[in-house]
Amino acid sequence: MTSAANQHVAIEDIRRVAHAALARAGCDEENAAAVAAVMAASDRDGCASHGLFRLAGYLASLKSGKVNGRARPTLKRLAPGVVQIDGHGGFAPLAMAKAREALEPVVREQGIAAAALVNVHHFSALWLDVEPLVEKGLAAMCFTAYMPAVAPYGGRKPFFGTNPMAFGWPREDGGTMIFDQASAAMARGEIMIAARDGHALPPGVGVNADGQPTTDPAAVLKGAQLPFGGYKGSAIALMVELLAGGLIGQPFSVEAGTQDNKDGGPPRGGVFLLAMDPAKFGDPEGWLAHCESFFERYMALGDVRLPGDRRAKNRARIDREGTELPVKLWEDALAAAGG
Amino acid sequence: MTSAANQHVAIEDIRRVAHAALARAGCDEENAAAVAAVMAASDRDGCASHGLFRLAGYLASLKSGKVNGRARPTLKRLAPGVVQIDGHGGFAPLAMAKAREALEPVVREQGIAAAALVNVHHFSALWLDVEPLVEKGLAAMCFTAYMPAVAPYGGRKPFFGTNPMAFGWPREDGGTMIFDQASAAMARGEIMIAARDGHALPPGVGVNADGQPTTDPAAVLKGAQLPFGGYKGSAIALMVELLAGGLIGQPFSVEAGTQDNKDGGPPRGGVFLLAMDPAKFGDPEGWLAHCESFFERYMALGDVRLPGDRRAKNRARIDREGTELPVKLWEDALAAAGG
Repeated sequence: MTSAANQHVAIEDIRRVAHAALARAGCDEENAAAVAAVMAASDRDGCASHGLFRLAGYLASLKSGKVNGRARPTLKRLAPGVVQIDGHGGFAPLAMAKAREALEPVVREQGIAAAALVNVHHFSALWLDVEPLVEKGLAAMCFTAYMPAVAPYGGRKPFFGTNPMAFGWPREDGGTMIFDQASAAMARGEIMIAARDGHALPPGVGVNADGQPTTDPAAVLKGAQLPFGGYKGSAIALMVELLAGGLIGQPFSVEAGTQDNKDGGPPRGGVFLLAMDPAKFGDPEGWLAHCESFFERYMALGDVRLPGDRRAKNRARIDREGTELPVKLWEDALAAAGG
Repeated sequence: MTSAANQHVAIEDIRRVAHAALARAGCDEENAAAVAAVMAASDRDGCASHGLFRLAGYLASLKSGKVNGRARPTLKRLAPGVVQIDGHGGFAPLAMAKAREALEPVVREQGIAAAALVNVHHFSALWLDVEPLVEKGLAAMCFTAYMPAVAPYGGRKPFFGTNPMAFGWPREDGGTMIFDQASAAMARGEIMIAARDGHALPPGVGVNADGQPTTDPAAVLKGAQLPFGGYKGSAIALMVELLAGGLIGQPFSVEAGTQDNKDGGPPRGGVFLLAMDPAKFGDPEGWLAHCESFFERYMALGDVRLPGDRRAKNRARIDREGTELPVKLWEDALAAAGG
């Protein structure tokens, strides 16, 4: 099988090839750079499902005309604590950069503030969306819906998106603790990779088109994923729909699914980004040391990990050593980039 | 067994007896009324574990002097979007009422705002804390830590509190959709009730003092609870610690556990309350109808429930018919109230 053969690739080459392929498919320089950067960063952090693996989807949406590769996000202040960034039908990364830039001073002034990203096509990893704010000492949360993929607890048909949420907490010396988790039991990208590689899924990840439990990734992709943690994860998925959809005037996953042209790329929708300045919450001098002592006690438990620890280790190693990509994925990317 | 014998009691009688018992144990009128109201409301909503069942804990903390039954919460504006309510060592309900009152106009002006409750003893149900804001058309989230009860994913010793979070969304005609869930697989109050009634727990709820899985509620109370949904629920528990502890300068659960006098009542700590005005997020005219259409499509799936539906049904019925309490619980409450 071709999928078993891997090719060693440097992260900088992933970024460069992705950029060229996006530019060739109609992205302007700023959009190509922003999207290529998030793909390369995902592969660098060991998250193949949001890395170059997604290039085909990005390119399909440029080709079909669903996404505008030259969109320029615009900004509007909706309230003292709320900014809206309109992506005008472009990919999310450029709008997200603008959202962070706009949000940071507002948060430092208000203590807490939110950015509503609208009319964007979000296909990247949420931890990358919040990380730059967290590195600057802010706490941040981020939510986005998708297309129907997950059955609510008790149900058997896709209704919720995979609905990830991220939470980031600033550590000393510009470090971060960030978790980024789908409210599905497993991220859809990981199921797609399991289907590609012919691996079975753990139980509890999804049901087939008849609503019956299955460990076959292809059957789950045609059926429905299940939320993590039963009714509690299902409630989190519902919250994500309301924050990234209803609150900010963007489609719910069921609506995005109907509106989408099914080209394999991301639907149009919203992202909800929220940030807080810990210096404005009552313990401006002490909060960082207090939290660091908490993380120390946590790690002293043994047998536990902090969210994002694996990513941090991957990052240092893969940045230096490069990563392994399926030969076909790399050859397709090279071809899309013009050889 | 005495615990098997039940007594039929009207909700108004629960409120009245709780009020009298709290007043007799040292609460002033305002505190007694606020605490009695949340206990009566929990029993009315069918949540026995936060109802009169908690009276003994409240009384123990008044008797031990840990909680000041006459505390008057004070207010401070920390930033345009942040208010701090200092409970001065009293029970949470009065401080929570003041927090909602202070937060509402700030949220309507800022779009998003937060209240940091500090130095409170929180022992009640979070859905009651957010409900009055949600009934007024605001979205709200609430988080609180506790004392070490839950082992982080991978660990075997209590470290996190049960760390509930609530999320409330306004429905038409002043209705609400509110979920309130522990980040533990099961709420501690429910495990205490299972222990009292001699019921076994479902698997996955906790481990014994040696870190081994068990379905014996008494063994879990001496060992450690487990988070819901594996590492994802554990991440939610971690987030709750950082929001209700580190962010607002209040003890983490591990710290609260050391500081607490173990009188059976609630530890001193913080509550983080966040609210948003959907009218300030980009779809001021359309958001409510848009969300209602979403809830309609959700219910049309069949086999699914909205969070809080069971509470709403309980409320209408129990408000009318009253509830069943263990005879001993009711007799103890009557005795505490002075007969």
